Amino acid sequence: FDVDGMKVAWAGSRHAVEVADRMARLVASDPVFRKDTRTMLSRKELFKDTLKKAAHAWKRIVELRLTEEEANLLRLYVDQPGYVDLHWGMFVPAIKGQGTEEQQKKWLPMAYKFQIIGCYAQTELGHGSNVQGLETTATFDPSTDEFVMHSPTLTSSKWWPGGLGKASTHAVVYARLITEGKDYGIHGFIVQLRSLDDHSPLPGVTLGDIGGKFGSGAYNSMDNGVLRFDHVRIPRDQMLMRLSQVTREGKYVHSDVPKQLLYGTMVYVRQTIVADASKALSRAVCIAVRYSAIRKQFGSQDGGPETQVLNYKTQQSRLFPLLASAYAYRFVGQWLKWLYTDVNQKLEAKDYSTLPEAHACTAGLKSVTTSATADAIEECRKLCGGHGYLNSSGLPELFAVYVPACTYEGDNVVLLLQVARFLMKTVSQVAAGKQPVGTIAYMGNIQHLMQCKSAVNTAEDWLNPAAIKEVFEARALRMAVNCAQNISKAPSQEEGFSELSPDLLEAAVAHVQLIIVTKFIEKLQEDIPGPGVKEQLQKLCSIYALHLLHKHLGDFLSTGCVTARQGALANELLGKLYAQVRPNAVALVDAFDYTDHYLGSVLGRYDGDVYPALY
Amino acid sequence: FDVDGMKVAWAGSRHAVEVADRMARLVASDPVFRKDTRTMLSRKELFKDTLKKAAHAWKRIVELRLTEEEANLLRLYVDQPGYVDLHWGMFVPAIKGQGTEEQQKKWLPMAYKFQIIGCYAQTELGHGSNVQGLETTATFDPSTDEFVMHSPTLTSSKWWPGGLGKASTHAVVYARLITEGKDYGIHGFIVQLRSLDDHSPLPGVTLGDIGGKFGSGAYNSMDNGVLRFDHVRIPRDQMLMRLSQVTREGKYVHSDVPKQLLYGTMVYVRQTIVADASKALSRAVCIAVRYSAIRKQFGSQDGGPETQVLNYKTQQSRLFPLLASAYAYRFVGQWLKWLYTDVNQKLEAKDYSTLPEAHACTAGLKSVTTSATADAIEECRKLCGGHGYLNSSGLPELFAVYVPACTYEGDNVVLLLQVARFLMKTVSQVAAGKQPVGTIAYMGNIQHLMQCKSAVNTAEDWLNPAAIKEVFEARALRMAVNCAQNISKAPSQEEGFSELSPDLLEAAVAHVQLIIVTKFIEKLQEDIPGPGVKEQLQKLCSIYALHLLHKHLGDFLSTGCVTARQGALANELLGKLYAQVRPNAVALVDAFDYTDHYLGSVLGRYDGDVYPALY
Repeated sequence: FDVDGMKVAWAGSRHAVEVADRMARLVASDPVFRKDTRTMLSRKELFKDTLKKAAHAWKRIVELRLTEEEANLLRLYVDQPGYVDLHWGMFVPAIKGQGTEEQQKKWLPMAYKFQIIGCYAQTELGHGSNVQGLETTATFDPSTDEFVMHSPTLTSSKWWPGGLGKASTHAVVYARLITEGKDYGIHGFIVQLRSLDDHSPLPGVTLGDIGGKFGSGAYNSMDNGVLRFDHVRIPRDQMLMRLSQVTREGKYVHSDVPKQLLYGTMVYVRQTIVADASKALSRAVCIAVRYSAIRKQFGSQDGGPETQVLNYKTQQSRLFPLLASAYAYRFVGQWLKWLYTDVNQKLEAKDYSTLPEAHACTAGLKSVTTSATADAIEECRKLCGGHGYLNSSGLPELFAVYVPACTYEGDNVVLLLQVARFLMKTVSQVAAGKQPVGTIAYMGNIQHLMQCKSAVNTAEDWLNPAAIKEVFEARALRMAVNCAQNISKAPSQEEGFSELSPDLLEAAVAHVQLIIVTKFIEKLQEDIPGPGVKEQLQKLCSIYALHLLHKHLGDFLSTGCVTARQGALANELLGKLYAQVRPNAVALVDAFDYTDHYLGSVLGRYDGDVYPALY
Repeated sequence: FDVDGMKVAWAGSRHAVEVADRMARLVASDPVFRKDTRTMLSRKELFKDTLKKAAHAWKRIVELRLTEEEANLLRLYVDQPGYVDLHWGMFVPAIKGQGTEEQQKKWLPMAYKFQIIGCYAQTELGHGSNVQGLETTATFDPSTDEFVMHSPTLTSSKWWPGGLGKASTHAVVYARLITEGKDYGIHGFIVQLRSLDDHSPLPGVTLGDIGGKFGSGAYNSMDNGVLRFDHVRIPRDQMLMRLSQVTREGKYVHSDVPKQLLYGTMVYVRQTIVADASKALSRAVCIAVRYSAIRKQFGSQDGGPETQVLNYKTQQSRLFPLLASAYAYRFVGQWLKWLYTDVNQKLEAKDYSTLPEAHACTAGLKSVTTSATADAIEECRKLCGGHGYLNSSGLPELFAVYVPACTYEGDNVVLLLQVARFLMKTVSQVAAGKQPVGTIAYMGNIQHLMQCKSAVNTAEDWLNPAAIKEVFEARALRMAVNCAQNISKAPSQEEGFSELSPDLLEAAVAHVQLIIVTKFIEKLQEDIPGPGVKEQLQKLCSIYALHLLHKHLGDFLSTGCVTARQGALANELLGKLYAQVRPNAVALVDAFDYTDHYLGSVLGRYDGDVYPALY
């Protein structure tokens, strides 16, 4: 097939291929950005290396007058977590999203010029997912027109913020706003932490690094930190006041800006995380596919050459579903970009009707794609045999640096429960005759989906996207309806929800997998240029859907969506599809267009010259 | 329940509790063995620390005149991979198992006194699982009565042996024996690598360390190495000659020692690996259960205290099956100890009839328990939320140090295919009227198991061990028979086996899970002293079996062993069992009797004082 065409399909456009390629090569050719010795550095050396790379990247961005798109790609390919990620990714957006125009005018220019370095201090030692449980206080003192920032307990210590330990001069700090003796809950405040003269902590501020983290290299380049306040005073105007204010007199008042506007940011961040999942997964798959084409084991008679590991059905059945998943996540990520634009347009038009659906959809996709990607990276490592355990394979570091995605920006289990809650609400609304929209529109088809039986009669019938879609829709809907019925038997809705939460997680996963399958199918209804490109993607789409059907066969059988015979036919087709993908597997990972520098793996080298490089 | 009684059930005997406890405390109280700063050391410091600990452990073993049992436990609790593991675990046993009496008399006393340090050089850069594919040559030269050890290609470099990179003076090297121009395949040779005077590599020997590995700390304390030979000569009598010899004239002759004797060693090593799986898994579960009882999230109204994470059904449904698995693997490990004795007695009586069954059984148990344990450690890490990502939680290092068990001593997929091959053979033998024995005896019950339907009618019916055993036996047998039937449709047996290998892996897993479930049930038929101890274990046994039934529901439904309704009843019972285990969960991990030193986790501290320790 046309690999260049596949590169365009993967990247999203010819322009995206070109700019990514240019930035990747810029980084790869610059000796300051070399990373092959990274896992051998001590923590201190690694941190210094990160500072050096961040400064050099900034220098190049300025010198070359890079666009924002180019600058973001350059930082991506530098591929080393550091304080800069939080400065651009959390501190600046928080001020943009939650600061008044006046506050933006004051703080953003300093941040843009790196006169200040900011981080995002939310999580505490004793409080993670439950933001409402944070203990840090910001008490308004009308006598001085200041907030008093304080850490009343040990568990209220800010703990984890990236960039906090060593680099940041400022933070957006989340704390309980207390004024006139009343607790108004969690709000954001801009707080200076370190002197702009000598970088020492300001009086009343205790700062530190929270220690080593998973892996060598990986997130140890980041100064995740701890922060305690002992009655630190900040001016009143450093509360982020776009949505609500405290007046000079200490009155708490809401502005006329609807709080729903914040949802746009949330959709944006989660869309980024799904895009990152496809990047991390595709890197791991690229390494495993290429090395499986080089590595040989068994299969010889009389001392002849052994068989390429990639030819073994067991290797294919573990690896090709992950290859298909990388493409599936890439396309659902592209769709999420569209969703973000759509949500923003609706927000501007003050149409909040689709927000709950967008929230559930992005929460679910974040959870499912990051969990599956973390598992898949480790599976790819195992698929490389013993050598995958060496840091030089790149896979241990890729795993260690990726897994926090399962926890940050919403723990994956907590997010799935939010999806489940939305599904239960939708089921009851459908029962009341309301027509759902967007990714839950299928639930409106309840009459058909609750009783349909798949018409699949031969293995090849499973190639029909409509056949796939029907059983995934029926499975998701029936699992949700089962849960709703079981909840209704409980003494109370909340008790039922809690008791059934393990089942609800499974129903939520079924719903999210349906979304991914559907978006892959929809992508294939578009025009996709290049000889053979669409045909390859059709095979991958079938593999993605059918491997899920096989893996979750219990769901499909127990809800009566498919028969045991139809399940066996799906499995039979999978075997045939693996054989068809085999000759194109290496080209399918070449289409990701990753440099050897970005891959960072001796096993995944483009030239395949693995053993001399390992030695 | 009686926690002391549970300690005895876990350890195997009152004596085992006592000696383990004594050795664990000996290590924990000795400042040389402290390990809380281990992940902060550079590679070089870490390696030096390992040398220091190994020397100190040896000193204590000699000073205190420890028994072999005590010495092994002391090394276990030092808990740091190092060259000593290979010296005692591979080098000495290889000479014992494959050396003649004369060779044992010459080499073992030096090894016992550490006058020489040995490792085990089998794996090569380009050759792992397929031992027959090794390329290193040992060519006999009759003119000097020597073997010439040589690495003819880059891929023939020995790669991975622990202790090889820096510490070892000698190695048992596996190489192709060539004499009189003929290649006699892979044999073992004792080769000196370094000078006993100044530890420098001998002429023609190239040695090195292969670099950093997964994790900080973890296996980076081990000097996994590379070794190349450039025509290195060793005396003929350094070939391990118990099973075959080369004569002074260069004739290759077999001894009268049956090669089956080597199987005893293999069963022994795999039994150790299964025991290690239960140790690693129980450590992770202990940390996760204890911290889940301390950590609180959500569930409060109006600022009241939040709910212990351990009370959430989602936490229980992920964690308690792992707790049950730790006990399940412990008991199947105890049974394997018995099997090892049994196999050895039969070998001495020249009865080789049960060897294939013992081989398949140990291969399968090694594969299933190590894969599940690796996944479970990572799941426990996620169950600790963000803090599980800190090295101070102990879990990243536990994971990184454990995962190689999935690859070494037989790659887990390769081993499962061996199990599958044995199952296919058994199916055809049963069809021919032969009565299988041991762990495959159930296959003799083919008439009943191919058509039986579970009589389970209420959730509580699943508490009956006979009901569990029947459906696990039926599932395993039917999956094996399905595979055999599908293979028979292929053009050739080999082609069919290869095409169906993904299905065969699943059939092998079903068989091995049946073994584990059965041995747990059999354990509960023994007398288990202590009030409440057996009752707790019965609940864990039910959880272990039913969570597998739920996870692999597709297997059970598609083979018609259970109905969808029976599957739902199993799931319902699981929820009830979780609620019953909840109040005893912490005591059930206390029964592992691990010191804080051995756990090495701030989150898993016995006193629960987590946050001050983290801070």
